Amino acid sequence: MPKIALETIPASNGTPYPAEFAGPFAGRWTRRVGSAAKFEDFGVSHVTLEPGAQSSQRHWHEQEDEFVVVLSGTATLVDDTGRTLMVPGDMAVFPKNDGNGHMLVNEGDQPCTLVAVGAHGRGDCHYPDIDMHLFHGKGWRRKDGTEFPEQE
Amino acid sequence: MPKIALETIPASNGTPYPAEFAGPFAGRWTRRVGSAAKFEDFGVSHVTLEPGAQSSQRHWHEQEDEFVVVLSGTATLVDDTGRTLMVPGDMAVFPKNDGNGHMLVNEGDQPCTLVAVGAHGRGDCHYPDIDMHLFHGKGWRRKDGTEFPEQE
Repeated sequence: MPKIALETIPASNGTPYPAEFAGPFAGRWTRRVGSAAKFEDFGVSHVTLEPGAQSSQRHWHEQEDEFVVVLSGTATLVDDTGRTLMVPGDMAVFPKNDGNGHMLVNEGDQPCTLVAVGAHGRGDCHYPDIDMHLFHGKGWRRKDGTEFPEQE
Repeated sequence: MPKIALETIPASNGTPYPAEFAGPFAGRWTRRVGSAAKFEDFGVSHVTLEPGAQSSQRHWHEQEDEFVVVLSGTATLVDDTGRTLMVPGDMAVFPKNDGNGHMLVNEGDQPCTLVAVGAHGRGDCHYPDIDMHLFHGKGWRRKDGTEFPEQE
């Protein structure tokens, strides 16, 4: 049946970020809806941000278009232009290689749910606020290319 | 600014379907959000279905994954398994080549808004209920390959 029964898709609050940048994600619960559907063309995630949680470190992709729509609660979109409140039904677009680092933060007192769509991982990703860079094929490293310490 | 100002994106109720199958779409208003963002990786449409309107003819794609999330109002998902009500926040997935023809119909008395994501047009598309087929690169024809009359 095409309609998604959300409770059948596992929710994870894990992050592949290095430990020193993994803090704000304990309250981010991601369900890989596209993977559950065996999608090949793009990824779809259903994300719940508990109060205080954020969607990612502020970033932009060289080779991945990204789209977000808010379903419930509110989130603050932080990007180079400032801070923008997003309410249910609001959408945001992040075209590849636009150089505008972005993230969403739940600064409200209720959970925020959203859907995020993106191309499957490819190309480098830039993080303007922190000393981290995603080198395609090599994972997250410091901007000078040195590796982070092994995580436990 | 990444947040979409919906009113800046033109809404169209046009359809490329041949005239005899274009009836239920006068009340379907589509905004090409992905195109406005110059997305290359996938298409994103914001769709308003007025009462009685439907999202498409019932169909399935050989080579395009599709995803839908309802934002407001209600829609009835019609597919091979039957009829399923979808309310705000509900999502549905239509993996490529699953052979399960699907469409959404607004049977409520309020407009329904939704976001639809799909790969850019490629491959054939099947319509189980009507004598129409999308031949990739040749457009919509009858199932035996003959062309529809020219539209005005």
